[in-house]
Amino acid sequence: MAFTEIEYGVTDRIATVTLKRPERLNAFTFTMRGELIEAFDLADADDEVRAVVVTGAGRAFCAGADLGGGGGTFGHRGEGETVDGAPRDGGGTVALRIARSLKPVIGAINGPAVGVGVTMTLPMDVRLASETARFGFVFARRGIVTEAASSWFLPRIVGIAQAMEWAATGRVFPASEALEGRLVSRVHPPDELLPAAYALAREIADNTSGVSVAAIRRLMWSGLSASSPWEAHAADSRLMAELGGAADSVEGVTAFLDKRQAEFPMKVSQDLPPGVPSWPDDPYRV
Amino acid sequence: MAFTEIEYGVTDRIATVTLKRPERLNAFTFTMRGELIEAFDLADADDEVRAVVVTGAGRAFCAGADLGGGGGTFGHRGEGETVDGAPRDGGGTVALRIARSLKPVIGAINGPAVGVGVTMTLPMDVRLASETARFGFVFARRGIVTEAASSWFLPRIVGIAQAMEWAATGRVFPASEALEGRLVSRVHPPDELLPAAYALAREIADNTSGVSVAAIRRLMWSGLSASSPWEAHAADSRLMAELGGAADSVEGVTAFLDKRQAEFPMKVSQDLPPGVPSWPDDPYRV
Amino acid sequence: MAFTEIEYGVTDRIATVTLKRPERLNAFTFTMRGELIEAFDLADADDEVRAVVVTGAGRAFCAGADLGGGGGTFGHRGEGETVDGAPRDGGGTVALRIARSLKPVIGAINGPAVGVGVTMTLPMDVRLASETARFGFVFARRGIVTEAASSWFLPRIVGIAQAMEWAATGRVFPASEALEGRLVSRVHPPDELLPAAYALAREIADNTSGVSVAAIRRLMWSGLSASSPWEAHAADSRLMAELGGAADSVEGVTAFLDKRQAEFPMKVSQDLPPGVPSWPDDPYRV
Repeated sequence: MAFTEIEYGVTDRIATVTLKRPERLNAFTFTMRGELIEAFDLADADDEVRAVVVTGAGRAFCAGADLGGGGGTFGHRGEGETVDGAPRDGGGTVALRIARSLKPVIGAINGPAVGVGVTMTLPMDVRLASETARFGFVFARRGIVTEAASSWFLPRIVGIAQAMEWAATGRVFPASEALEGRLVSRVHPPDELLPAAYALAREIADNTSGVSVAAIRRLMWSGLSASSPWEAHAADSRLMAELGGAADSVEGVTAFLDKRQAEFPMKVSQDLPPGVPSWPDDPYRV
Repeated sequence: MAFTEIEYGVTDRIATVTLKRPERLNAFTFTMRGELIEAFDLADADDEVRAVVVTGAGRAFCAGADLGGGGGTFGHRGEGETVDGAPRDGGGTVALRIARSLKPVIGAINGPAVGVGVTMTLPMDVRLASETARFGFVFARRGIVTEAASSWFLPRIVGIAQAMEWAATGRVFPASEALEGRLVSRVHPPDELLPAAYALAREIADNTSGVSVAAIRRLMWSGLSASSPWEAHAADSRLMAELGGAADSVEGVTAFLDKRQAEFPMKVSQDLPPGVPSWPDDPYRV
Repeated sequence: MAFTEIEYGVTDRIATVTLKRPERLNAFTFTMRGELIEAFDLADADDEVRAVVVTGAGRAFCAGADLGGGGGTFGHRGEGETVDGAPRDGGGTVALRIARSLKPVIGAINGPAVGVGVTMTLPMDVRLASETARFGFVFARRGIVTEAASSWFLPRIVGIAQAMEWAATGRVFPASEALEGRLVSRVHPPDELLPAAYALAREIADNTSGVSVAAIRRLMWSGLSASSPWEAHAADSRLMAELGGAADSVEGVTAFLDKRQAEFPMKVSQDLPPGVPSWPDDPYRV
């Protein structure tokens, strides 16, 4: 793990990704972008990992793009892949990687999360915040646009009225406003944030089939853009046929009837059924 | 009405569908599946019915699929129709039937609603719960996936973060958590649940045009997957042209100006205009 | 400005549109429809305008369609354009014009907002209400359907359960119910409503790039019907390439680093980049 701007570790079947440039409030760079994508690749490939917690080192979660390049920061976009001729937006490459994660992702937002620092959290499943967190969709104050596919994610999470109020003002707001606007699910005292994130990850890891959770995560997130419930029904029917008689289902039902903890034998790396959906225009479809 | 696992009755222009296997906590079977679809067919065809209330007999709403088949329960899927070669998911056939109901549907969730017991309520218009209700999207604990097209419905009702938290943990949760997460609209003491459901149904039956409500219900639910508001505008324009000069509109406006209760003459069975939309991929389009 | 049923004025870079038929509770007419569209054309073309506030003169916001035509009111639909052979729904022409506004729009709902009086507010970015406001999606009580593309907007703003409850009952409800159901963002005492609306408009006008806000508004609203986050990512990437090195971005970042208020040089009328999206089926695409 030759990471330089993040840390990645796995304990008790829960991976932790820590943004780690505390001297720069964990500001986002092209290097961090690549390391984050790599970390999610590792988590997806490792059957030991049942959930991923993302947090920041030091007092910030992520202060946004590193503005060390000065006024021209957002003009330097020549690195990496392109999409329709334009360089791919860096925050978007991370957000879309998280969106297609096979493991559920919990954001533990320990401090300021501004710009790409907040938009990168939108494709996470659950966002928990410290009382010391602050948020800002500050793009309109920097002369750019809401990136990281946040125009797709944000209105689907908090509603279009709340999304437009935050994006049009570029206001920086406290955790209480994030909670009221449903950007975060819960707010915790600083020292209770990580324990709460791990308790939620634990609830997933201890009780559920990893193959089920991976399939459900894809059904739900890609279902957000399904053209109708009839499309979801076709996907469900196929997955119920593929998984209904498989080992995890037999174990899950038997354990429930026996009133004992289930021990699911299937592995995400090997046993993910072919019916697990992805977005039709995802060039990296699994 | 040769129903064996549900009850269906109409009083005062409100139909009641009661899940009726109280000795099995109203657990869902292939028979119940078929009877539910038939009940909604009856309600749609009966002009006396202006709204449908769905509830459970005894102390449960519906405990989910009947697991009497043991570990192999979800592997026995050979009955009935197929979709793309797979047996159609049974919960989905009920959910999609409710989704295209011409009458508004009110869920009166009187006790545990788990698995298909809760996913079948998602295409209902309004969910009211008793303080004794409990909910669980427990699929990942049984090694299967969220079914009944719930990957389409649930994130659109409660948001993707809440949907994923419930689906990834498979947690069973109380009515208070369902209310806070917006899965149910209101929570009532047990003996006030059915009165509240009937009062809401009454408000619809006494004040509105059945043709209007049927058309609006289809506009709204299929509008959830419309590709843009311009598509909705085309549907609206057609329906306003079809209904704007028709008898119910003349009566509705005249009664309002006269400050009296309207008596709408049109019938859903005969007078539904051709512009009423349905989902493009619904094989059962009306 | 030869307006007869509305007033339009610009002060301190904020436009105000006032519905002005107070003797008829600002009831909606074909004339008002045309004047509203023209007012939003003026606001979009005027670089001085950074935000638009919409309110009503007198004690109402808008009582809905003027029913002076009696029972046949909704049958008189022969004026103006058609869509697929049907006369275009009048409320829809206003709603869709507001939806593609380049300037953010704040509804200051000062009193009753019923029928088209409330549906016309749905494509506004933020709705603030006076304690004296009342709301009603009364269409089913008049024998017609939810119009102004509200079947698209309403469930995306308040969720399908709340949308169906209001639309199926046709109930008139107070500001408190609108707030709880998330139809409005905040409720104010009557004399604090307009100051709150202008404070929000001021926050936008004083701190952000107009070009950014116009691009973001289009990304967000058209993003609500984007087929996936990958589509949003393509649009983001193009806009970040177009705007990242442009004058507003250089000024925005430099001002932030200098800890001073930014003075954005770009103009919406001239500098809107070609990547700004619109809905694919909008016949009036900018």
